[in-house]
Amino acid sequence: MSRSQVLILMGSDSDYPVMEACFRMLRKFEVSFEAHVCSAHRSPEKAAELASTAKDRGFLVIIAAAGLAAHLPGVLAAFTVLPVIGVPCKSGALSGADALHSIVQMPAGVPVACVAIDGAANAALLAIQIIGTSNDDVSAKLLQYKHELEMSVQLRHERLQEKLKNLTD
Amino acid sequence: MSRSQVLILMGSDSDYPVMEACFRMLRKFEVSFEAHVCSAHRSPEKAAELASTAKDRGFLVIIAAAGLAAHLPGVLAAFTVLPVIGVPCKSGALSGADALHSIVQMPAGVPVACVAIDGAANAALLAIQIIGTSNDDVSAKLLQYKHELEMSVQLRHERLQEKLKNLTD
Amino acid sequence: MSRSQVLILMGSDSDYPVMEACFRMLRKFEVSFEAHVCSAHRSPEKAAELASTAKDRGFLVIIAAAGLAAHLPGVLAAFTVLPVIGVPCKSGALSGADALHSIVQMPAGVPVACVAIDGAANAALLAIQIIGTSNDDVSAKLLQYKHELEMSVQLRHERLQEKLKNLTD
Amino acid sequence: MSRSQVLILMGSDSDYPVMEACFRMLRKFEVSFEAHVCSAHRSPEKAAELASTAKDRGFLVIIAAAGLAAHLPGVLAAFTVLPVIGVPCKSGALSGADALHSIVQMPAGVPVACVAIDGAANAALLAIQIIGTSNDDVSAKLLQYKHELEMSVQLRHERLQEKLKNLTD
Amino acid sequence: MSRSQVLILMGSDSDYPVMEACFRMLRKFEVSFEAHVCSAHRSPEKAAELASTAKDRGFLVIIAAAGLAAHLPGVLAAFTVLPVIGVPCKSGALSGADALHSIVQMPAGVPVACVAIDGAANAALLAIQIIGTSNDDVSAKLLQYKHELEMSVQLRHERLQEKLKNLTD
Amino acid sequence: MSRSQVLILMGSDSDYPVMEACFRMLRKFEVSFEAHVCSAHRSPEKAAELASTAKDRGFLVIIAAAGLAAHLPGVLAAFTVLPVIGVPCKSGALSGADALHSIVQMPAGVPVACVAIDGAANAALLAIQIIGTSNDDVSAKLLQYKHELEMSVQLRHERLQEKLKNLTD
Amino acid sequence: MSRSQVLILMGSDSDYPVMEACFRMLRKFEVSFEAHVCSAHRSPEKAAELASTAKDRGFLVIIAAAGLAAHLPGVLAAFTVLPVIGVPCKSGALSGADALHSIVQMPAGVPVACVAIDGAANAALLAIQIIGTSNDDVSAKLLQYKHELEMSVQLRHERLQEKLKNLTD
Amino acid sequence: MSRSQVLILMGSDSDYPVMEACFRMLRKFEVSFEAHVCSAHRSPEKAAELASTAKDRGFLVIIAAAGLAAHLPGVLAAFTVLPVIGVPCKSGALSGADALHSIVQMPAGVPVACVAIDGAANAALLAIQIIGTSNDDVSAKLLQYKHELEMSVQLRHERLQEKLKNLTD
Repeated sequence: MSRSQVLILMGSDSDYPVMEACFRMLRKFEVSFEAHVCSAHRSPEKAAELASTAKDRGFLVIIAAAGLAAHLPGVLAAFTVLPVIGVPCKSGALSGADALHSIVQMPAGVPVACVAIDGAANAALLAIQIIGTSNDDVSAKLLQYKHELEMSVQLRHERLQEKLKNLTD
Repeated sequence: MSRSQVLILMGSDSDYPVMEACFRMLRKFEVSFEAHVCSAHRSPEKAAELASTAKDRGFLVIIAAAGLAAHLPGVLAAFTVLPVIGVPCKSGALSGADALHSIVQMPAGVPVACVAIDGAANAALLAIQIIGTSNDDVSAKLLQYKHELEMSVQLRHERLQEKLKNLTD
Repeated sequence: MSRSQVLILMGSDSDYPVMEACFRMLRKFEVSFEAHVCSAHRSPEKAAELASTAKDRGFLVIIAAAGLAAHLPGVLAAFTVLPVIGVPCKSGALSGADALHSIVQMPAGVPVACVAIDGAANAALLAIQIIGTSNDDVSAKLLQYKHELEMSVQLRHERLQEKLKNLTD
Repeated sequence: MSRSQVLILMGSDSDYPVMEACFRMLRKFEVSFEAHVCSAHRSPEKAAELASTAKDRGFLVIIAAAGLAAHLPGVLAAFTVLPVIGVPCKSGALSGADALHSIVQMPAGVPVACVAIDGAANAALLAIQIIGTSNDDVSAKLLQYKHELEMSVQLRHERLQEKLKNLTD
Repeated sequence: MSRSQVLILMGSDSDYPVMEACFRMLRKFEVSFEAHVCSAHRSPEKAAELASTAKDRGFLVIIAAAGLAAHLPGVLAAFTVLPVIGVPCKSGALSGADALHSIVQMPAGVPVACVAIDGAANAALLAIQIIGTSNDDVSAKLLQYKHELEMSVQLRHERLQEKLKNLTD
Repeated sequence: MSRSQVLILMGSDSDYPVMEACFRMLRKFEVSFEAHVCSAHRSPEKAAELASTAKDRGFLVIIAAAGLAAHLPGVLAAFTVLPVIGVPCKSGALSGADALHSIVQMPAGVPVACVAIDGAANAALLAIQIIGTSNDDVSAKLLQYKHELEMSVQLRHERLQEKLKNLTD
Repeated sequence: MSRSQVLILMGSDSDYPVMEACFRMLRKFEVSFEAHVCSAHRSPEKAAELASTAKDRGFLVIIAAAGLAAHLPGVLAAFTVLPVIGVPCKSGALSGADALHSIVQMPAGVPVACVAIDGAANAALLAIQIIGTSNDDVSAKLLQYKHELEMSVQLRHERLQEKLKNLTD
Repeated sequence: MSRSQVLILMGSDSDYPVMEACFRMLRKFEVSFEAHVCSAHRSPEKAAELASTAKDRGFLVIIAAAGLAAHLPGVLAAFTVLPVIGVPCKSGALSGADALHSIVQMPAGVPVACVAIDGAANAALLAIQIIGTSNDDVSAKLLQYKHELEMSVQLRHERLQEKLKNLTD
């Protein structure tokens, strides 16, 4: 049994720079996670195994990141009743439009929750929101985070005024 | 306080034929819902009000369906910490590609869980999976549903054999 | 052990009208096949089982047809060293562009041979060409078929001349 | 009451390099403006407040710039009867095609005037043209500007002849 | 001198079904208009003449609708300092995506205000909003119209509840 | 030696309905043509033969229409120094966007003159314009045709006024 | 009266790097040309003037290059019966897809011969082929050029063999 | 008669960096190949000759790489009954989307097996799989390769754990 709440799978460690925002967001909210490199095509049995046992091991949500013909989130969703969040990664000639299609256009019966291309931070936040539906501490932190977002707008507004003053002079 | 678990918003009652699969799936799983016609552009205050109060009224998940410049799911997500599931609707000259972009490409900080274009049944299933993370009855029904899906494949397989026999003759 | 040379998998019997051209082409060349309804998402274990055992059961090539987030061909390719031919099916709001991306953009290491959207006849011909690399009878029939194609152009040319005469009068 | 004619909103100060051409064009025409960082998703109440009060504060036009799922122009248009000009910003994997769809494909009843991706200078010119419909001084300056555009073509034509001479030699 | 406020140009009378919503909206707001069939390619001199003289004839705004390589709005904008609103029409194999690109992607210096593909009603509303910047009667009607939009949402909400009751039974 | 000026090739007689506008336009201008069904893939030798001998047989221009992976115009251009005009045909799941790419994106050294998807009438007009560069009779007819186009705009303008009167009543 | 055979127009001298290949190809074939910076939007009257008088000044073909909403080739075609070749330039967020649509999708009656995005060399070759339809010297040079192309393939083939040898060692 | 199993054709030696992965993969599996620079447009007769004689010279599979309007694989397929694998190359303004369409959308009767844009390694693997259908040694190596892929996932997994430790500290 894992003590972690979120299971994160990514096709290669080369996706780490994109997914770092996901890891950092989960840390910020003190939501525990376990991360694996796992490919729907190169290690399909590991993918099936991790997804099949995720619920029994105590995970609440799965996040999967993949590029190109990004089958990993859908393949995991086939083996679990946990919500699976898919992150289409920008890579290759089509800049992630292929990964977006491969993740979001799931057929009826097996959903994947798709976020933006390279949307690793939002994948974490969505997982945290899902955990927050049954965890008041997490939910309270989300409200605090919404407040921080609003504050950051104010900060940026002030930086804009500085820039505009320099434009004037 | 609502007694429903899922809050469903759609831009117009003309989206009903698409969203009927969502309503039926929630009924099948005995997950309660409340549905509103509500537009990010024509009734923005109602949208803000419904999203702002959703958590306190006891909802666990929000589903929002919209076409064209489909702002509704993102606008709702701005006002709540509940998970928001977006259903891009196929309408207009771009067949829903515009709605897909408007829903899935949310900026960091405010996630929306996007499903396929016209993916109303999967929006319901995703909401049910989210509820299932803290509700064993719902989770058990999802396992049963996965079994049904597999059975339906067998049924269709048999129909295919019939068709192939007729191809022979 | 199967006596068939080609294993054909399709996500639903509703793809039958598209795939009929594939079945008819194989029949025309007297290449034997076995066809299953099988889904990467609804029956993932059946998919893994069929692909894993295909070579030992004597199949030479696999053809898989799927629409939307069309994972089936890639998932099968993960479990076999046989060549896998993928047919993206036109369905849903994106008319098969999503299926094309999901099938053709496979990552390095696990190839899928993609044909045109709804290109069921060409999937069969490609399978036949593969079999023809080690089967002179099949190869000879392919040469004959190329001749037929050229003849059909002549026939159509004559029909065009008829139409042009009517345009004149 | 503001003394400015144009209200400019942008999702982040990081959009400043794109929007600088807008600020400079308004300065050139001596059209006054007030600029805010404001996000449809991170500060939705500020957005609603600014749009709702814009007319009473004396603004004539609103310009809003946003990238990705660019909801800001549409959200502002929901709260005002002033013309709202939207600038889709090039950012992220889809290079602004997502922002273009999110801004231009507004549903009937709530228009947004969309300019080109990163078309900040034209957003300013369009605002100036709108002001010019009831302001003869501004209108006269626009005629003068059209003349300048034509002169710049002549200047560039001469530079081309220089380059062609060098090609010859 | 025209007594009309809005000059409307369309490439062919075959665009009438799309543009009827524009005409009706202007009528509803009692905004006067003059409409011409005029093509950037088939009658380029008429286009130049109409645009060049529009301001002196008293028009405040120009609306131009075109499909395919939709040059008309941009060509008109080259000859006037009035705001030009472009309506990309859905026609041909690309369903209006070509017209959208041809209208919205104007180079710096000559703006066109682009609305949605087939967005004829919004083109009218945008013209009315522009007129409303210097006309309090028109502005007051726009506020009333916003109220009507909100009411229509309520009406549609009630129709949805009826449909849901029938789903139950 | 052919007595015709334009050589027209099309992949199948099923393209006749699209190409009829091409035939009619050439007839209208009394420009002679010879038409063949010929496929780059099904009758490649006929294609090479027709293109290689076209100049010596007296043709001045070649028009080729094709859909899907539309190789015919480029393949012909490889075998001739005559100008080759390509007509991408709308067919299949991608509605001619594939044919457009296959025809217009020719590599440096071997040009094809691409017209709009299904642009058969314009293909004829372009051929006529090319012939007109050395034929004053044809050139004079083109000037007359331009006048007719302008007249047709006037006719359509009058029909629009009729429709608008009925809108009023 | 011009002594040049080809009239070349480009929206700005900044397109020079793309168009240099066009100028060089015409020089190589000793086909004379006159080049102007001229914009459909910034200098519409110059565009109309140049196109209207091109035939009488002795030009045989017009080449026009433009990016974004690339109206220049179509606008010129409206004013002349000479063949107009359009070069869509890669610029802006959409990498020339917008310019391609704006140039190739011309409505029936006014053709433009579109070449590839940034296809400046092929624009020149197409103009040369058109001139070659009535000029045997030019036509002979084109045959010679085709031979050079074939030789260059042989040269590149030899370079490939060198590279493969190094791969071996 | 060639002693090689795979015939590789590419439009230019400039495609070498992309195709190097193909050459290396074939070397790794000790599958012999012969490589040519050959263009469908610049050396069409060489292309026809190589494809027409490939089977008699003993080749089992053809691989062809091309960019832009990538006709080479389809043109070769027209002249042979061997399986032809097409590699769309990323080049030009459309980043290979044009080449993908030109290769994958082949009409019924003449198939091409398309791999991902720049998918040179997978083109080799697909050729090897095809050879493996009648060659047990090759087939055994493919099984071994599948095992290596799985091992590489484990290696990358360990690298990810290292990175995550550093994220913690």
